[in-house]
Amino acid sequence: MGKKNSDAKACDFVLFGTKGDLARRKLLPSLYQLDKANLLAEDTRIIGVAKDDFSQEEYHQRVTEALEKFVKEDLCPETLSRFVKRCFYIGAEFTNAESYEKFHDIIDLKKRVMVNYFATPPFLFGDICRCLNEQQLINSETRVVLEKPIGNDLESSKVINDQVSTYFNESQIYRIDHYLGKETVQNLIALRFANSLFASKWDNRTIDHVQITVAEAVGIEGRWGYFDKAGQMRDMIQNHLLQILSLVAMDPPVDLDADSIRDEKVKVLKSLRRINQDNVYENTVRGQYSSGFLEGRAVPGYLEEEDANVDSNTETFVALRVDIDNWRWAGVPFYLRSGKRMPLKSSEIVVYFKNPPHNLYRDSYRNLPPNKLTIRLQPHEGVEIQMMNKVPGLEQKQRLQTTKLDLSFSDTFKNDRIADAYERLLHEAMKGNQALFVRRDEVEQAWQWVDGIMEAWDHAGEKPKAYPAGSWGPVASVALISKDGRSWDE
Amino acid sequence: MGKKNSDAKACDFVLFGTKGDLARRKLLPSLYQLDKANLLAEDTRIIGVAKDDFSQEEYHQRVTEALEKFVKEDLCPETLSRFVKRCFYIGAEFTNAESYEKFHDIIDLKKRVMVNYFATPPFLFGDICRCLNEQQLINSETRVVLEKPIGNDLESSKVINDQVSTYFNESQIYRIDHYLGKETVQNLIALRFANSLFASKWDNRTIDHVQITVAEAVGIEGRWGYFDKAGQMRDMIQNHLLQILSLVAMDPPVDLDADSIRDEKVKVLKSLRRINQDNVYENTVRGQYSSGFLEGRAVPGYLEEEDANVDSNTETFVALRVDIDNWRWAGVPFYLRSGKRMPLKSSEIVVYFKNPPHNLYRDSYRNLPPNKLTIRLQPHEGVEIQMMNKVPGLEQKQRLQTTKLDLSFSDTFKNDRIADAYERLLHEAMKGNQALFVRRDEVEQAWQWVDGIMEAWDHAGEKPKAYPAGSWGPVASVALISKDGRSWDE
Repeated sequence: MGKKNSDAKACDFVLFGTKGDLARRKLLPSLYQLDKANLLAEDTRIIGVAKDDFSQEEYHQRVTEALEKFVKEDLCPETLSRFVKRCFYIGAEFTNAESYEKFHDIIDLKKRVMVNYFATPPFLFGDICRCLNEQQLINSETRVVLEKPIGNDLESSKVINDQVSTYFNESQIYRIDHYLGKETVQNLIALRFANSLFASKWDNRTIDHVQITVAEAVGIEGRWGYFDKAGQMRDMIQNHLLQILSLVAMDPPVDLDADSIRDEKVKVLKSLRRINQDNVYENTVRGQYSSGFLEGRAVPGYLEEEDANVDSNTETFVALRVDIDNWRWAGVPFYLRSGKRMPLKSSEIVVYFKNPPHNLYRDSYRNLPPNKLTIRLQPHEGVEIQMMNKVPGLEQKQRLQTTKLDLSFSDTFKNDRIADAYERLLHEAMKGNQALFVRRDEVEQAWQWVDGIMEAWDHAGEKPKAYPAGSWGPVASVALISKDGRSWDE
Repeated sequence: MGKKNSDAKACDFVLFGTKGDLARRKLLPSLYQLDKANLLAEDTRIIGVAKDDFSQEEYHQRVTEALEKFVKEDLCPETLSRFVKRCFYIGAEFTNAESYEKFHDIIDLKKRVMVNYFATPPFLFGDICRCLNEQQLINSETRVVLEKPIGNDLESSKVINDQVSTYFNESQIYRIDHYLGKETVQNLIALRFANSLFASKWDNRTIDHVQITVAEAVGIEGRWGYFDKAGQMRDMIQNHLLQILSLVAMDPPVDLDADSIRDEKVKVLKSLRRINQDNVYENTVRGQYSSGFLEGRAVPGYLEEEDANVDSNTETFVALRVDIDNWRWAGVPFYLRSGKRMPLKSSEIVVYFKNPPHNLYRDSYRNLPPNKLTIRLQPHEGVEIQMMNKVPGLEQKQRLQTTKLDLSFSDTFKNDRIADAYERLLHEAMKGNQALFVRRDEVEQAWQWVDGIMEAWDHAGEKPKAYPAGSWGPVASVALISKDGRSWDE
């Protein structure tokens, strides 16, 4: 449908934590892009909330500065002027309901849908909801968008979700996992269900295994204290990688509606084979980077970073063998790995197909390389199929070569700017489409499974295995997959 | 193995009809290329035979002229000098055994394998064999390479094959179909049997139908009389298109040996559903080009070409719906078309996969475009997969777009010169590998099937349908496929 501002209902988009890093880097620039693309309704307002006592002019100045710094291309003066006029500022104590009185000057629940974006630490979510409620700022249309992390285990996530759900129904709650806003993750659904070449082969009869890698080249970037409480398992696996896994593995949904898709995703999460003390060694590897070299320069180890507690056992790398105990995936392992200080930034899904039942080329090749489908999430979004072709030439024995059929999104869709994940997610939240947001039962299933692993790790009491910054993780990660006769994609 | 001259057995390569068009355009240049690639044994000789009374020097001169004219790149002086030294000339009456006496001066059956290439009209094949035999020039190693056409129906092909097989076993006979020498046709086997993505989907459960198109932009090129006796059915369908069809459709061979592959191909030809008077209208279209425009210029119709008999009913275009009555292909039609004066020169195989069992995108797309695999034989050899991807963008309903994953051979294998089909075939004949040559039972099965159609056409007595030069054939060709709810690939 591609609703333009003509038919989209106007919002009061309230940005709690407007001074924070996320708001300045991602949210304000994404809202600006939506405005530029005519995807904001004419009357939509953006209301920044923080505790400072800014004037409207000061706030406009700060918004403009954030856009100048974080919008990648030159600002369009016309859009900028229109955008700034949408922006309002409210100074409020997040936990003090009285200070929310000023909201009534700007918010109009009858004319516009109130969309509250909580870009704040999660311990504030409940207080903000309570204050909104006390000020009667919630009606059945009001929405809340929650930034991760939602808790750091099942129990704490339940506390937060309970607090929010005291005031909001599940249909009003939009939990962000920004990976779900990525173009290629979106394309996963089309790839799987609009292409019979894959649709009819997406199971344990034809797929050998799947690899999901989310590698970061960065280290801690000044967030040591924050990261150390979480670790890579909670920060990356529990949300992003399990979300990707569930999209790759889910059964065909009844339709493309939000809950139809989320029903299937949660089924996958429920089918994950538990990892506990009995099988934690076979199926998991924890790593922590030591000093090393990356992009030509020496970089410090995790325990040598600024503000580091040198006794920390927090993992910066995780590799997992995940089994999905259902009909479709029995016997098809999913290998997940995610780490910091990897050689390069790279996120990809690689589907390895089984070999043909018989090798006609056995005189020349004891093992034929398998077909594989690579879905690159970043840095260059695209799709690639590796297949075998004959090398041109007159040799008697046919020489084969792996070749790649390649579809780069940026090359293929040259005229289309690829929207940032947050643009899509903000747009969907304002339109009221929950498909790209995480339902409570998904969060809880994921935490339950992750908690089991964390407990097993705690119980074992082992330190994470060191790996040099700039490598692909501890040697044990190679062993994890090679004991199954497979190897990580390179 | 890539045998270099060190381990290849030397040949006396005897080229009957060395003055003809084929020898000058294709055979001598291909032999030169083999020499340049060090694929001729050191002692291999090339012995041109024609009736003229050339001196060796005159022959060398003519060989050089042919190479200068028909080798595409600059000649390598070193190779040229080596090549010309291999060349010998014998003036002989093809039907007169006495004139073959001179062969004994050059040919040495003990030291070298004699490979006789009959680039002559087929009515001479028997005579040449008889003369070779009378002069005791045949031993168990001696080979004959036969250029098409081998007959113009089953009976006449039997006559020729009987004549040749009086003197040679089937294992000594190499029947040329130059399409089998094309790199992409070769690659068909690798594509099918070294890629599980296709291997496990190559049947009526996953493939909807297959199209094979061999389109020529040229018309008759001064060969009106020759062509008019044959027509497009005998000239193109009976050999090239049925050969391609049998490689696409064959069951996995036991191994990659010549007879294992040919056993499977002949099974396909045996399974072709007969077309006779009862079903000829539903399954065939004959066309004949009338005047039209091609590449910006007016071109004459078939009946207006030089030397044309204006009453000719010979077809210059054929479209067929072919059914293969076996387990693998029941219900999967193969649509074949081949014609002259088409808009462009293009040979390709297009495999259409079935649609996914259920269309999740039915709100936006009543019918999803199917996945298809295109194997381009010419002009740009390559492989292409059409699939559906989501168009990047923020629309609520996912917009899909067909996109192409492309593998161009010339781009992928940049450093490798793609060998001409004749280079490969000559090389294989000299090495004694029959895999790329057509066995007698294949020829006869193909003729038997084609004869049925020709008889049905004769019986109906209809003129071929006119189509303007520069079009894709008569309208009836569109109807042939569209009545099945399908359409020709564009």
